[in-house]
Amino acid sequence: MAKDFVKRSENYSEWYNELVVRADLAENSSVRGCMVIKPYGYAIWEKMQSALDSMFKATGHQNAYFPLFIPKSFFEKEAEHVEGFAKECAVVTHHRLTPKKDGTAGLEPDPDAKLEEELIVRPTSETIIWDTYKRWIKSYRDLPILCNQWANVVRWEMRTRMFLRTAEFLWQEGHTAHATREEAEAEAKKMLNVYADFAEKFMAVPVIKGVKSPNERFAGAVDTYCIEAMMQDGKALQAGTSHFLGQNFAKAFDVKFLSKENKLEYVWATSWGVSTRLMGALIMTHSDDEGLVLPPALAPIQVVIIPIFKTEEECEKINQQAQRIKTTLEQQGISVRYDDRREYKPGWKFHEYEFKGVPLRITIGARDLAEGKCEIARRDTMNKELVNIDTVTELVKPTLDDIQSNLYNRALQYRLDNTRKADTWEEFVDILEHKGGFISAHWDGTPETEEKIKELTKATIRCIPFDNEKEEGRCVYSGKPSSQRVIFAKAY
Amino acid sequence: MAKDFVKRSENYSEWYNELVVRADLAENSSVRGCMVIKPYGYAIWEKMQSALDSMFKATGHQNAYFPLFIPKSFFEKEAEHVEGFAKECAVVTHHRLTPKKDGTAGLEPDPDAKLEEELIVRPTSETIIWDTYKRWIKSYRDLPILCNQWANVVRWEMRTRMFLRTAEFLWQEGHTAHATREEAEAEAKKMLNVYADFAEKFMAVPVIKGVKSPNERFAGAVDTYCIEAMMQDGKALQAGTSHFLGQNFAKAFDVKFLSKENKLEYVWATSWGVSTRLMGALIMTHSDDEGLVLPPALAPIQVVIIPIFKTEEECEKINQQAQRIKTTLEQQGISVRYDDRREYKPGWKFHEYEFKGVPLRITIGARDLAEGKCEIARRDTMNKELVNIDTVTELVKPTLDDIQSNLYNRALQYRLDNTRKADTWEEFVDILEHKGGFISAHWDGTPETEEKIKELTKATIRCIPFDNEKEEGRCVYSGKPSSQRVIFAKAY
Repeated sequence: MAKDFVKRSENYSEWYNELVVRADLAENSSVRGCMVIKPYGYAIWEKMQSALDSMFKATGHQNAYFPLFIPKSFFEKEAEHVEGFAKECAVVTHHRLTPKKDGTAGLEPDPDAKLEEELIVRPTSETIIWDTYKRWIKSYRDLPILCNQWANVVRWEMRTRMFLRTAEFLWQEGHTAHATREEAEAEAKKMLNVYADFAEKFMAVPVIKGVKSPNERFAGAVDTYCIEAMMQDGKALQAGTSHFLGQNFAKAFDVKFLSKENKLEYVWATSWGVSTRLMGALIMTHSDDEGLVLPPALAPIQVVIIPIFKTEEECEKINQQAQRIKTTLEQQGISVRYDDRREYKPGWKFHEYEFKGVPLRITIGARDLAEGKCEIARRDTMNKELVNIDTVTELVKPTLDDIQSNLYNRALQYRLDNTRKADTWEEFVDILEHKGGFISAHWDGTPETEEKIKELTKATIRCIPFDNEKEEGRCVYSGKPSSQRVIFAKAY
Repeated sequence: MAKDFVKRSENYSEWYNELVVRADLAENSSVRGCMVIKPYGYAIWEKMQSALDSMFKATGHQNAYFPLFIPKSFFEKEAEHVEGFAKECAVVTHHRLTPKKDGTAGLEPDPDAKLEEELIVRPTSETIIWDTYKRWIKSYRDLPILCNQWANVVRWEMRTRMFLRTAEFLWQEGHTAHATREEAEAEAKKMLNVYADFAEKFMAVPVIKGVKSPNERFAGAVDTYCIEAMMQDGKALQAGTSHFLGQNFAKAFDVKFLSKENKLEYVWATSWGVSTRLMGALIMTHSDDEGLVLPPALAPIQVVIIPIFKTEEECEKINQQAQRIKTTLEQQGISVRYDDRREYKPGWKFHEYEFKGVPLRITIGARDLAEGKCEIARRDTMNKELVNIDTVTELVKPTLDDIQSNLYNRALQYRLDNTRKADTWEEFVDILEHKGGFISAHWDGTPETEEKIKELTKATIRCIPFDNEKEEGRCVYSGKPSSQRVIFAKAY
C-alpha cells in the first residue's frame, strides 16, 4: 500500500491531485493556473503526440504553425466565438517594460509602448487561421486544406486542476477547409473516429461518440461531435471534440472560392482538438490506491527489472541475466529500465515503479535465479508469478498486450455497470445522488430543459450518441415527447 | 531559370524574402512580426526537431514543459537578464475583455480584470525554470537535472524577417543544473558540440565553434559558446548558443543543495538553444537563383518521380515502373513523391520541385523508357543523366549521400574562400567594404574597442574560436597587444 496516500474512496479529488504530484507527472507553478509538466508526465504526453501525429498524417493532414497572438478585432468578427472566449483570455497591452516612473524600484509596462490594438493570447486559433486561409484559397483547386497545429493555448479559467483545467495547456488543433458541406461534415466525423480509436487503442479508455446539444456546442460551430469517457467516480470527461463549423468562419473572414462551376462560394470548415486533458482522463480511468496505472501503449517504461542480491557474485550473475533480458526485449521494441542502483533498496524500488504505473516488473532474486526462475508482477492486477528465466522474454509481449486489453475491458465494464436508464425525474435525481455515473434518459430537445436540469442537479447532456436507437418516450424533466435517449452526467 | 525571381547577385535580401514565400516555407501573418510557418516549411522544421530531439535524448536529456508566462517580479531578479529582455517583451495586463464602457461597438480590456502583477510572455525561460528547480533540488542526489523544452517564445523585435528575426519564434531551450562548475562547463560545451554536429551532418552547414566576447554574451551568462555560419552574402549567422550560467540564476532564485560533504552550496547552471532561425541558415547557405536547395537529410521529399507520356498505354507502362521504383526506395527509408497529376504539365512540375529544393528528380519519359532508360537530375549541380531504369534504385542512396556531402563541401569552400586575415585597420575596412566575409584579426580584448569597431563598420566579433592558435599581434583597431585572432563579420 502506498504510504500516506489517500484512497479513492476517501476523497477522489484529493487522490487525483496527490497522484499527479507524487507520480512526478506535473506540479503547480508559481504562475496562477499554469502547471509545470515534469519529465515523466511529459514523456507520456510525447507518446500520445507521436501516436496521434501519425494518425493525422495517415489521414492526409500536414502540420503548420500559426501566431500565438490574435488581434482583438479578429476575435470580434465571429459573434458567438468572441462571446465564448472574451471572458477568459490573456490580453497583451504593451511591448516593453521600463523602470517605474514614480522612482520606486522595479519595472512597469512602458506607457510609450502601448499597443495600438490589444493582442489576445490564442485560446484557440480559428480566427487567425481563417485570416490566413483567406490568402491561401482562391479556387476549388486550393481545397481541401488539411492542417494541424501542435501548440499551447490560454484560457483564463478561475478554478484550475492539473491537466483537467489549466490556464495554459498544450494541445493540437486541426483546421480544415472544404469545397462542400458534405466533405466538411465527413471530415469532422472522420477525425472524431481518429480520436475514438486513439482513446480506445492507446489509452485503453472506452468512449461514447456522439453529438453535443446546442448548449454544449463550441462557440462558433454548427455541430460539435465529441468523445465522452467515464472516470472512476462516475463523472464524465470530454476527451476530444471535432467541430463542423459550417461557413461561419468563412463568412466572418470573407473566404470564398471559385467553384468548378465558376461560382464564388463560401468555404466550409472544421476544427478538432485534443489536449493535455487526455492525461487527466488516462490517470483517472486506470489508476488505483497504489498509484498510477499506465496502459503499455503509452508507458514511457514498459518493463522494469529489479535485482535482489547480497553478494557481489550474486550481483554479477543477475546482471548477466538482466542485460540479456533487456537486450532481447529492446529488440522487440519494448522499453526497459534495469534499475541496479545500489543507493535504493528493492522494496523502495518496487513501490516507486508501482506508484509510477510501470506495467510489468521483472524481479531477479539470487535464490530464485539459483532455481532458474524470476518473478514477473503485473501492475494492473498486482499478480505475481514465478517463471522460467530462460523463457521470460517470450512472456513479456503477450503479457503487455493482455494488460492493455484488460485495462480497456475493465474500464468498459465499469462504464456499463454505471450507466443507468432513468424514466422518471425521481429516478433521475436518485441515481445522481446515490449512484452517479451516466444516465440514459429522454430529453425534450430544448435548451431550456437542459439548462433547468443542470441548475437543479449539475448534470449536463454529455452527448447524443451516434449509434442511438430511436425510441419514443417522454422527457425525464418536462414530460414532453422525445424520440431518443441522451447521456446525462456530471462532468469534469 | 525561375520566372520573375530576383537573383542573389541583384538583391540578396529580396531574394531571401521572396524565396521563403514562393517556396511555400512561410509568410507574414496579420500580426506584426509574427509569421505563419506553412506545411512545407514546417515539415523541414519537424525533421530538424526530430534529429535534435534524438541527439538530446542520446545525451541523457528529458523533455518537460514550463509556463508560457513569467511574473514580472521573476524577471527582475537577475539584473543583467532583465536588462537584456525588458525592452522587447509582450506584457499581459488583463485577463478578460468586456464591451466598451463608452458604449461604442467592440471590446476592451476589462478594468476589473487587471492582473495584480503583470505577466511577461517568455522571451526565454531561465527565470520560471529556476523558480521551479528551487522546489526540485535539495541535495546532490537530485543533481544533475537535464531538461529540455520545445516551445514558442516572444521577443518584441522592431525589425523582423521571416525565420531570422521574428517576434514569436519556435525553439528548444535546454536548462541544466549541476553540483560543480566543471560539470556545468562541460555540459555547455557538450551541447555546443551537439549543435555543431547537427548543423554539419544534417543541415550540411559548416560552423565555427567558439566563445562570445562579453558584449555579445547572453544576458545573465558567465560565458556564451556559439556556432557561427557564413551565409552566401558573406554575413555571419549565429546558428546556436550554449551558455554557462555560473551560479547567477541559482543566486537570483536562491537554489542551494546539500553537497556530499554536507555543505549548502549554490547550484551551477547551463542553458542552450536553437530556433527556427536555423531555417534561415539552411535556406541562405545552399539555395540559388533557381530556388531552394535542401540537403537530403532534411528534405521532406527526397526524390520526386515525374512521368512524361502522351498515350494511355505509355502512361500505364510508366506507372508500373514508377510504382516499383517508389516502393523500392521507400523500403530503403527514402521519401518519394510520384507526381502523376494530369492537371499540371511536366515542365511546370520540373520547375515546382526545383524551386522547392527536392534533391533528386527521376523523370520517366515514354521514349527513354522504350530504351530501358530514365533521367535523374540533381538539384545541387543541376546535372542530368540518362541511366538504366532497372538499376536506377541502386543509384539513389549513393547520389543523395553525395549531394549531402557536396553541399557541405561547397559551403565550407565558400567560407574558406571568404575568410581573410586583416592586420591593419585599412585592410580591415577594405575587406568589409569590398569583399565581405569573415575577418580574422587581432583584438585588444576590451569591450570599448569592440564597441568602436561595431560603430564604425557594423562588424562585430562573432566568436573567439575554440581551436584558435595563440599568436602574438597587435589589435587591428587600437594597436594594443593581443594574443590571438578573433572572427569579425557583419551578422544577421
